[in-house]
Amino acid sequence: MHALVLEKAAQLCLRDIDIPEPMGTRDVRIGICTVGVCGSDVHYYQHGRIGPFVVKAPMVLGHEASGVIIEVGSGVTHLKVGDRVCMEPGIPDPNHRATKLGMYNLDPSVRFWATPPVHGVLRPTVVHPADFTFRLPDNVSFAEGAIVEPLAVGMHAANKAQVKPGDIAVVIGAGPIGMVTTLAALAAGCSRIIVSDVQPPKLAKVATLGPVTVVNAAEQDLSAVVEEVTEGWGADIVFEASGNSKAGLEVFQLVCPGGRVVFIGMPGEPLPYDVVGAQVKEARVEHVFRYAHVYPRALALMGSGKINVKPLITDTFPFADSLQAFDFATKMPPSSVKVQIELT
Amino acid sequence: MHALVLEKAAQLCLRDIDIPEPMGTRDVRIGICTVGVCGSDVHYYQHGRIGPFVVKAPMVLGHEASGVIIEVGSGVTHLKVGDRVCMEPGIPDPNHRATKLGMYNLDPSVRFWATPPVHGVLRPTVVHPADFTFRLPDNVSFAEGAIVEPLAVGMHAANKAQVKPGDIAVVIGAGPIGMVTTLAALAAGCSRIIVSDVQPPKLAKVATLGPVTVVNAAEQDLSAVVEEVTEGWGADIVFEASGNSKAGLEVFQLVCPGGRVVFIGMPGEPLPYDVVGAQVKEARVEHVFRYAHVYPRALALMGSGKINVKPLITDTFPFADSLQAFDFATKMPPSSVKVQIELT
Amino acid sequence: MHALVLEKAAQLCLRDIDIPEPMGTRDVRIGICTVGVCGSDVHYYQHGRIGPFVVKAPMVLGHEASGVIIEVGSGVTHLKVGDRVCMEPGIPDPNHRATKLGMYNLDPSVRFWATPPVHGVLRPTVVHPADFTFRLPDNVSFAEGAIVEPLAVGMHAANKAQVKPGDIAVVIGAGPIGMVTTLAALAAGCSRIIVSDVQPPKLAKVATLGPVTVVNAAEQDLSAVVEEVTEGWGADIVFEASGNSKAGLEVFQLVCPGGRVVFIGMPGEPLPYDVVGAQVKEARVEHVFRYAHVYPRALALMGSGKINVKPLITDTFPFADSLQAFDFATKMPPSSVKVQIELT
Amino acid sequence: MHALVLEKAAQLCLRDIDIPEPMGTRDVRIGICTVGVCGSDVHYYQHGRIGPFVVKAPMVLGHEASGVIIEVGSGVTHLKVGDRVCMEPGIPDPNHRATKLGMYNLDPSVRFWATPPVHGVLRPTVVHPADFTFRLPDNVSFAEGAIVEPLAVGMHAANKAQVKPGDIAVVIGAGPIGMVTTLAALAAGCSRIIVSDVQPPKLAKVATLGPVTVVNAAEQDLSAVVEEVTEGWGADIVFEASGNSKAGLEVFQLVCPGGRVVFIGMPGEPLPYDVVGAQVKEARVEHVFRYAHVYPRALALMGSGKINVKPLITDTFPFADSLQAFDFATKMPPSSVKVQIELT
Repeated sequence: MHALVLEKAAQLCLRDIDIPEPMGTRDVRIGICTVGVCGSDVHYYQHGRIGPFVVKAPMVLGHEASGVIIEVGSGVTHLKVGDRVCMEPGIPDPNHRATKLGMYNLDPSVRFWATPPVHGVLRPTVVHPADFTFRLPDNVSFAEGAIVEPLAVGMHAANKAQVKPGDIAVVIGAGPIGMVTTLAALAAGCSRIIVSDVQPPKLAKVATLGPVTVVNAAEQDLSAVVEEVTEGWGADIVFEASGNSKAGLEVFQLVCPGGRVVFIGMPGEPLPYDVVGAQVKEARVEHVFRYAHVYPRALALMGSGKINVKPLITDTFPFADSLQAFDFATKMPPSSVKVQIELT
Repeated sequence: MHALVLEKAAQLCLRDIDIPEPMGTRDVRIGICTVGVCGSDVHYYQHGRIGPFVVKAPMVLGHEASGVIIEVGSGVTHLKVGDRVCMEPGIPDPNHRATKLGMYNLDPSVRFWATPPVHGVLRPTVVHPADFTFRLPDNVSFAEGAIVEPLAVGMHAANKAQVKPGDIAVVIGAGPIGMVTTLAALAAGCSRIIVSDVQPPKLAKVATLGPVTVVNAAEQDLSAVVEEVTEGWGADIVFEASGNSKAGLEVFQLVCPGGRVVFIGMPGEPLPYDVVGAQVKEARVEHVFRYAHVYPRALALMGSGKINVKPLITDTFPFADSLQAFDFATKMPPSSVKVQIELT
Repeated sequence: MHALVLEKAAQLCLRDIDIPEPMGTRDVRIGICTVGVCGSDVHYYQHGRIGPFVVKAPMVLGHEASGVIIEVGSGVTHLKVGDRVCMEPGIPDPNHRATKLGMYNLDPSVRFWATPPVHGVLRPTVVHPADFTFRLPDNVSFAEGAIVEPLAVGMHAANKAQVKPGDIAVVIGAGPIGMVTTLAALAAGCSRIIVSDVQPPKLAKVATLGPVTVVNAAEQDLSAVVEEVTEGWGADIVFEASGNSKAGLEVFQLVCPGGRVVFIGMPGEPLPYDVVGAQVKEARVEHVFRYAHVYPRALALMGSGKINVKPLITDTFPFADSLQAFDFATKMPPSSVKVQIELT
Repeated sequence: MHALVLEKAAQLCLRDIDIPEPMGTRDVRIGICTVGVCGSDVHYYQHGRIGPFVVKAPMVLGHEASGVIIEVGSGVTHLKVGDRVCMEPGIPDPNHRATKLGMYNLDPSVRFWATPPVHGVLRPTVVHPADFTFRLPDNVSFAEGAIVEPLAVGMHAANKAQVKPGDIAVVIGAGPIGMVTTLAALAAGCSRIIVSDVQPPKLAKVATLGPVTVVNAAEQDLSAVVEEVTEGWGADIVFEASGNSKAGLEVFQLVCPGGRVVFIGMPGEPLPYDVVGAQVKEARVEHVFRYAHVYPRALALMGSGKINVKPLITDTFPFADSLQAFDFATKMPPSSVKVQIELT
């Protein structure tokens, strides 16, 4: 099949590749419609690796995908040919202890699209377990369906934070993950989100997503804004979505007594962390890794109009222009959030 | 001062009454603007009692109130004269064990407006602890401020349910409490609410509040609707807001495995309760009594536009027409939700 | 193989029966050593059915078992031939939604030993998934290993109650489930358990299990004892382990504000339930169905000496005397708790 | 009254001092019996300050105390003259927002014994709020009562960890706080505690407290021991009670997927913290500051024999030898845990 293949670092090619995919009884075959370009795709393109994951053989990129069911296994009951769907890109081992406890995202043996040596889905079709394939509500487009994957990260972070209705949250960082976290936290009950970043176009975009107060951290004191908005109490929740090395000190200045901090951003190395600052407020700190059990929830909220991801879909390319899409994504202007590639 | 006084059952009078109210250092004096009529006010009016609480002496009615600060005690720092506010009607004993644990609503020695022998606030002014007095956001009117009290019941129920974003909930009963529970549950992250009642005007009203599916229980099978909407899984949460005697059997047919049930409605006597039905789903059942710590949260959500209570304010009377207001409330048409009385 | 077969109601036979059991790669074959007699075994023996589960063909009884590994599948890594083990009797469908969420006990398609049409384990060997087979600590005997199954019910109830260290709990009912709940609740951090029953020998037994206050409900007022022990506050937790029809009224008199109630006993029909009594205390009510994920925890506590089940093993019969064992169990004296059958 | 007065850094004096103490209606006056010497007392003695808290005027030391009620205020109902008691040393502002939410330990305006400028209780009598004064069970001695204060820190940590029965925990550090955390975690349901330290006498002591595995971190690899004990899964909980600067890296190597980390030790400055290590396991990290609502729980567990603090009381001095007691405490041998001073 014709696919976008990463031959090795910096060498991307739209070419035929043979990917044998037998169907199991609980599998479906999906015709791919739309695939979003993730920072990890771009990173593999530029560097040929992410940490211990090294591209040693040609690998198809892409893991944020939507499509249409074209074949169903004999044991599949909840999906049928023609259903519009999106898919979780990671398939865990059902027998791993974490999976059995309900935390399948923590199974280290997960097979995840476009993580070597597993092929991604910038290609016409894929076979996938029906259990990780989710029907799109009628009012959710393929483009929106393909953004459920990054949205799921924000949803999972909001779940871990155990948002209570009326909470005031801070989101540090207005990149794609900060954006989806803002959407998820608002849908989860926050009354206001204070988002900080240093790039005005990103702040301008995030300000359109709901009751959001933006802070240009290059010019304003985030701590002072939080103190004012919360009348001196501090934010109920701080979502760290920047990976910034100062985050481990800053979050405890921002959070309220008994508040929660969620580390979503992945810094390159250990951070300085203010234990005593966390103690005097008895902060609860959560850490998230991908997501589990949230696709149906994200889709339900999109279907009922409570999450609108359309403002995040800023740049769309046809499949034939996939290389241009990746080149655009490598030097994406701050006014762009999500690049997508349409296969059909 | 001139007040709406319940002399005894069925005898209501707008007349002068002397209510001495010394100011403490942590108190404020509030000029009352708007007061909602609650079912309990109507019940005292009709019967002169609610359970063990008997009206033995003339008592001012009304506990859902908003107003303007006209005097502040010397120890009050967060409020000033001229602030627009609403008030929690119950003042707990700070030394009660439940209060110290943070559950002040469970203190049985609470003094609650318009619960004998404590006067309510259908009168020009009241002295109240500043700690139970909350500033209204600029975009929240006095009428909306006066509805925070019943909304707080719904907010508290949503808190107890620990709504997760994307949950699908059932609300049994579309009376005022069912309405505010619907608003609160949506604000708390539910993607859809299935509301059942037997009165079409109530269902028509609640259907306007957001992604709501209405079920006329006189004509439709609620259980079948829940099964269809949830694809056979069951509702994540069932809010019982009717006090109906069959609720203890029905809720466990509706809820999903591991789901939550919240009893808000207060039935007149013990219900038949399906223990085994609850066990095979390991339902968690919560019970709510008034509310605690939710006024600031409700106001924050109203201020940011995430909760809109305006559709619930259906009938407004001037203070001089208070008796008519109560007579209207005693035989309120199903299209009405909340009667309010304006003092200024 | 030679097995204890229930031919039909009231007809039990120790005879040969053919049970083909292919080994899967993730299975183990276990030589059975000890099997406890459960109330459900006795009920099938007496009545040939439990609710919808009807014995339509000869069925081997017994599901509380320990044994020795005699064969391991090629995919099994954590067990080896010769390991002393006990087994969970229920095998869920790994693809059921409840299972994937970590609540495998709520999968209605579970296959459970000695529940028609699934054979139990009063027979020499059984093939079982390694994932539901657990190694016994060296200091845990086969007899103790065979009691992990009922203990797991108590453990699960204690988990659901979210015992906090120092909690005071009530256990209503001193049958086998009341006993294991008492042990589990003490191990989980309760400082004292108040156990009520009407049979003095049961109370005498449970009084030996730790800091237990016993109440003969035929002679004493449980509510008064709880009030005295808790200085008027109420019990932090009430475990209902009797199935008594008055439980739905009584538990809310006993529990403290903000306390928890766990329904373990399965009454034959819906109970009268005091909603308002539950509301004024905002009780959280949990319902348990079997158990999930607790075998390793129970074994760890037995291994470290924090749970001692030996006092519960009151009557032991050799396999050849299985019929006598069942006849004894059907009219068990109140001083007996658990009847076990030794196969080797 | 005659008291142990810290005149300034390094200058301690047993002398008369005038401390006027009016009784409020909700207060009690207590004759002090036993006072433990805490690390903070020793630190004030040596340095005259702890962080921002500076001894600017003579201050009585001591905050771990037990005694006998000698006078009760008119509003006190649950205590009477002659009651044997211990006391929480911190008195929060009941009107602070954190206090009202039930987190009174997070009120920064708390008045805490022997924290400048508040006098401690190494003196004959003290007036204290009855609400923070707790009756000792009959079988709990004054010496044991005086150790409830440090034990409360461990209890609070165990509460925050939400120990589930059968959990395996690591405690890093076998100082007094590591010891009380070990006791509390065992009482809270842990089946085994793995304690690491570098001082063999401390490890020898902690090994006597229950099912404890000790690790001499100078000689053994803690991570390897945890892996072996937990069969490769990791510890359910890691309690950090050392304040060591490497803790923020180590804890995430030790904890299991979905596990919890509690920072009790207070390092002098920010730690390097392994965010990604925490993320791949989705660790929940809690931070504790003193304690709240745990005195009655600790006393209940001591009364029922589930916590035995006697092994921790290693060195006792009469009041007249208080200076020797402090000199001993400043250079305490590793075999000592807690120094106490007896006033009567």
